[in-house]
Amino acid sequence: MKVGAAGLCHSDLHLINGDWQKSLPLNLPKTPGHEIAGWVEETGTLVPKSIQKGDLVAVFGGWGCGFCFYCKRGDEQMCQAAKWPGLSEYDGGFSEYLLVPSYRFLIKVDEQTTFLKPEELAPLTDAGLTPYRAIKKVRHILGPNRNVAVIGIGGLGFYATQYARILGSGATVVALDRSDDKLEMAKEVGGADFSLNLTESEVRNKIRKITNGEGIDVVLDTVGLESTINLAVDILNKNGAIVVVGLFGKEIRTPLFQTVIQEYQIYGSLWGNYNELHEVIELAKKGKIKHQIHKFPLSRVNEAIDLLRAGNIEGRAVIIP
Amino acid sequence: MKVGAAGLCHSDLHLINGDWQKSLPLNLPKTPGHEIAGWVEETGTLVPKSIQKGDLVAVFGGWGCGFCFYCKRGDEQMCQAAKWPGLSEYDGGFSEYLLVPSYRFLIKVDEQTTFLKPEELAPLTDAGLTPYRAIKKVRHILGPNRNVAVIGIGGLGFYATQYARILGSGATVVALDRSDDKLEMAKEVGGADFSLNLTESEVRNKIRKITNGEGIDVVLDTVGLESTINLAVDILNKNGAIVVVGLFGKEIRTPLFQTVIQEYQIYGSLWGNYNELHEVIELAKKGKIKHQIHKFPLSRVNEAIDLLRAGNIEGRAVIIP
Amino acid sequence: MKVGAAGLCHSDLHLINGDWQKSLPLNLPKTPGHEIAGWVEETGTLVPKSIQKGDLVAVFGGWGCGFCFYCKRGDEQMCQAAKWPGLSEYDGGFSEYLLVPSYRFLIKVDEQTTFLKPEELAPLTDAGLTPYRAIKKVRHILGPNRNVAVIGIGGLGFYATQYARILGSGATVVALDRSDDKLEMAKEVGGADFSLNLTESEVRNKIRKITNGEGIDVVLDTVGLESTINLAVDILNKNGAIVVVGLFGKEIRTPLFQTVIQEYQIYGSLWGNYNELHEVIELAKKGKIKHQIHKFPLSRVNEAIDLLRAGNIEGRAVIIP
Amino acid sequence: MKVGAAGLCHSDLHLINGDWQKSLPLNLPKTPGHEIAGWVEETGTLVPKSIQKGDLVAVFGGWGCGFCFYCKRGDEQMCQAAKWPGLSEYDGGFSEYLLVPSYRFLIKVDEQTTFLKPEELAPLTDAGLTPYRAIKKVRHILGPNRNVAVIGIGGLGFYATQYARILGSGATVVALDRSDDKLEMAKEVGGADFSLNLTESEVRNKIRKITNGEGIDVVLDTVGLESTINLAVDILNKNGAIVVVGLFGKEIRTPLFQTVIQEYQIYGSLWGNYNELHEVIELAKKGKIKHQIHKFPLSRVNEAIDLLRAGNIEGRAVIIP
Repeated sequence: MKVGAAGLCHSDLHLINGDWQKSLPLNLPKTPGHEIAGWVEETGTLVPKSIQKGDLVAVFGGWGCGFCFYCKRGDEQMCQAAKWPGLSEYDGGFSEYLLVPSYRFLIKVDEQTTFLKPEELAPLTDAGLTPYRAIKKVRHILGPNRNVAVIGIGGLGFYATQYARILGSGATVVALDRSDDKLEMAKEVGGADFSLNLTESEVRNKIRKITNGEGIDVVLDTVGLESTINLAVDILNKNGAIVVVGLFGKEIRTPLFQTVIQEYQIYGSLWGNYNELHEVIELAKKGKIKHQIHKFPLSRVNEAIDLLRAGNIEGRAVIIP
Repeated sequence: MKVGAAGLCHSDLHLINGDWQKSLPLNLPKTPGHEIAGWVEETGTLVPKSIQKGDLVAVFGGWGCGFCFYCKRGDEQMCQAAKWPGLSEYDGGFSEYLLVPSYRFLIKVDEQTTFLKPEELAPLTDAGLTPYRAIKKVRHILGPNRNVAVIGIGGLGFYATQYARILGSGATVVALDRSDDKLEMAKEVGGADFSLNLTESEVRNKIRKITNGEGIDVVLDTVGLESTINLAVDILNKNGAIVVVGLFGKEIRTPLFQTVIQEYQIYGSLWGNYNELHEVIELAKKGKIKHQIHKFPLSRVNEAIDLLRAGNIEGRAVIIP
Repeated sequence: MKVGAAGLCHSDLHLINGDWQKSLPLNLPKTPGHEIAGWVEETGTLVPKSIQKGDLVAVFGGWGCGFCFYCKRGDEQMCQAAKWPGLSEYDGGFSEYLLVPSYRFLIKVDEQTTFLKPEELAPLTDAGLTPYRAIKKVRHILGPNRNVAVIGIGGLGFYATQYARILGSGATVVALDRSDDKLEMAKEVGGADFSLNLTESEVRNKIRKITNGEGIDVVLDTVGLESTINLAVDILNKNGAIVVVGLFGKEIRTPLFQTVIQEYQIYGSLWGNYNELHEVIELAKKGKIKHQIHKFPLSRVNEAIDLLRAGNIEGRAVIIP
Repeated sequence: MKVGAAGLCHSDLHLINGDWQKSLPLNLPKTPGHEIAGWVEETGTLVPKSIQKGDLVAVFGGWGCGFCFYCKRGDEQMCQAAKWPGLSEYDGGFSEYLLVPSYRFLIKVDEQTTFLKPEELAPLTDAGLTPYRAIKKVRHILGPNRNVAVIGIGGLGFYATQYARILGSGATVVALDRSDDKLEMAKEVGGADFSLNLTESEVRNKIRKITNGEGIDVVLDTVGLESTINLAVDILNKNGAIVVVGLFGKEIRTPLFQTVIQEYQIYGSLWGNYNELHEVIELAKKGKIKHQIHKFPLSRVNEAIDLLRAGNIEGRAVIIP
């Protein structure tokens, strides 16, 4: 396919830093870029006629075997043998063209009727997908008198506050970050009911107050540092759930007595599956989610990387080849 | 308690008609009115101090034994021994004062901070509660690329379209009724994405078109006539669910082959439970649901009954003692 | 593949009778047989090396497109474009050899370590799979103080009582049929706690007695006649579920008032999916399900059909080519 | 009530040690004993006639307010204001007589037809209840090709292996402990398929082998030490769940990357609720669970405490007043 846009993700920084050399070993050189949208350029003989040259497509990034237990239940991103473009064997989307090994990993989008652009689609395939799965996993807990908090209003967190509203059945949404600008965005654009700066004193008390002393029922941690997980535990309501998608830290630690007595639930959540990506794109088609995108030409990719590393991207950086 | 308002419900018409003489036998005379809100007038010795004279309260109408399997899981409205004010042994709310046998059946609402009035609260206890439970029961089916239809935009249906939006995780909401005025209300106030008049020809085809040929994933039937259930079946998507709360008809009939092969699901749903009523009131407190109320003084209750019978109430009639 | 065994199913009788000419139109002639096991004979170029000539395999019968919403969630048997060997375009297993269009539809079984034979495997792919999915669908309802009834102890029902025990979390299992021999088998081999002959008077009262007046929480109807569904409704407990897999009747009819007030649930259930077939085969491997098989050589297939039609097969007839 | 038997629990040791002085402060002196069964001695005026002097009853130990969110959904043991006999304000069952403040906390058992004795009933109210809730919480994960492990075959673990079998839908059950005698009991009486001594080398490898390299899908940790939770993580399959009920350690620590990428789930689980205790007692009535009880007269309670502390009780010690 011809790449139209490829999102830049903290995972790319982890790769560049070599943080995952042991857990995700790579043969270098490798082209990164795992959030990809563009147009079909050429199709193999097994591709059905519903997919044609020129079609706008989003690329689902978990290229599973299609045959194992996880693939057969739809979670191809959890397949033991899954390939991830830009993260494992296959090259990724920071490139003009990309080889996708099967049409099973594409979602076709009607460019004419939906008016979605590649730069809007690309981030949906990870930044937009990961928090969707995370919140969907615990939406049965949510409801009108429940509270949900999102820690970290970066590329994922910005979408997360929106999903908290859409999937939350009327729950109150609290955004938490260290940047006032990002918190402002979470409230104005992302639909958060409350926002709190993590550097403020009394964050815990303020949350108790917002929630009438009950605490938060679902905390989505898009960061994963010791400090954010500690906070998540401290603000959690009885029977509350922490869903971790951020990969910045080393460990998840919770106090045993409290975890048992209060019946906490802790979930790791990985990316999303193909049908979930369909759902995310459907939300975009319906205009129910907002995008916050900063476009960089492929030639300025290093600048974008530096900005992301410094925490100075509000929303998602997208590379345009 | 001193009754502030009591909603008028189709169930009251069924009672007056004698439709339920066999299934719900009553000793006459009986004061109807099972949707009740008002102020605490006097408290017994077992009532905790958090409930005081003058407090605004909504009455949960399923007065269960508190001890059986259903009560112990929270579904007191399903208790074998449940009493329902205005529908069984106890007199109801079309009266100045009402005896509530336990504080366990009250939900206290802060009149000062929430600005909710008895006439808004009363209908929530049945018209507002019944479709909430019905849709919550199947919300795991709903999502951005799913469709939900509400048949009958009466007292319940008006709330139902709102819940379809709030609990639907981005699902498309379709309102169906025979009255254009009610359909208009469902779209303008109730948040329906589409509305269709049941008397139009081609209703089924129009729904196929709206849903890209897929059909509806959840149909909430607030009517329960043979014709509405037939429609529900005809427009149902694979694996779709019909939830019936309306009691106008005699039978639920679905074609066997289709029901099995398409894996249809059919649910009856009864009123709601205490925690669900809390959730509904919380939505009202947060301003997330709209009310459509027509007030009648107790002296004009018969006029209200005639209007309801003729189908000329948009929203809910509420009796003010 | 070389067919080792192919089960004979009531669906085959429906086909032969022409019952489904409208719903499942076929180009004749057609070889029936959709419950198939045997050995790999030859493999195409896309087949992974883990599947080799000579391997014992069971054939999953819902040959979905692998790409749509239903396939991507694992329910290939619900795919709009699914092919079913012996029931639609493809020929079935009453034949020496069979063409399976993809290895994705095979489950490999180690003949040496599990000692399962093709004639045991073949019926698992439908008779053994369909009631498994049906009961798994409602196992969250079941528990130590719940009751489950299986109506019809034929090819499916014999497995069903076993699943009711295995998936029932300690529920009491009741078998219902018109044949004392089959009921005997359900108790002795199939693990039913109670059995009742449908032709007895007082079946309903006896069930009330067995269940301490509560009724049955899950009724699996493997027949689907008006009489069996009526019985299912009559014996149902509050909040009970009827799961219908039998296709003998025309309609599912339940009384509206009772269905709503008692919160009944009615489900159609279709065959099973690939992972569910894996689970069924795993039960067989572990020796946790028993088989009841009558082998007929391919030359005596018509005799087997006559016996099945007359209701004189206890367990499953299997054709051996 | 007249106490018939009261179980001795590790929680009693924690209390005696003063481990919970901060989290569960007590006014001393206090009579311990929170697993209680016996006979009704006298009833108050609000007690229904179905409960009479002389009735055999088990005491549900979470004495909730009956009115809050948790009580109204049935989880009275999670009520903020819950009293626990022998663990908080109320005295417990190491005594001849006990005051139970409401009949709502009793479960009546028919002594004549079920042949259950107080010493069998008492341990069911905590040792028998806690692992039941823990495993029920994750039973949707379990199935024929899933594996469940119980760490710690003490008072709770002995029941846990039995529930793993009953609620496990055919899952393979692995018992883990440091005592060969307890492991023997878990296999012979408790229905475990495999048992492994924690002091053996190669425990992790042996588990990989037993599970064909997949690992364990549900680990129930009845200990809660750093070493047992580490083991739980090491043997966990993708998407696996660790349920912790043991309170011996200080923290739950899991590696972040693995927890997220493998989508682990970690749950604390607290005691059980009233309906769950009904279910446990129903299993006992049906003869589906086995008891392992060591009776001590009240005069020898200190000896029993010493034996429990030394880990020398197989099954549950029960004090008989």
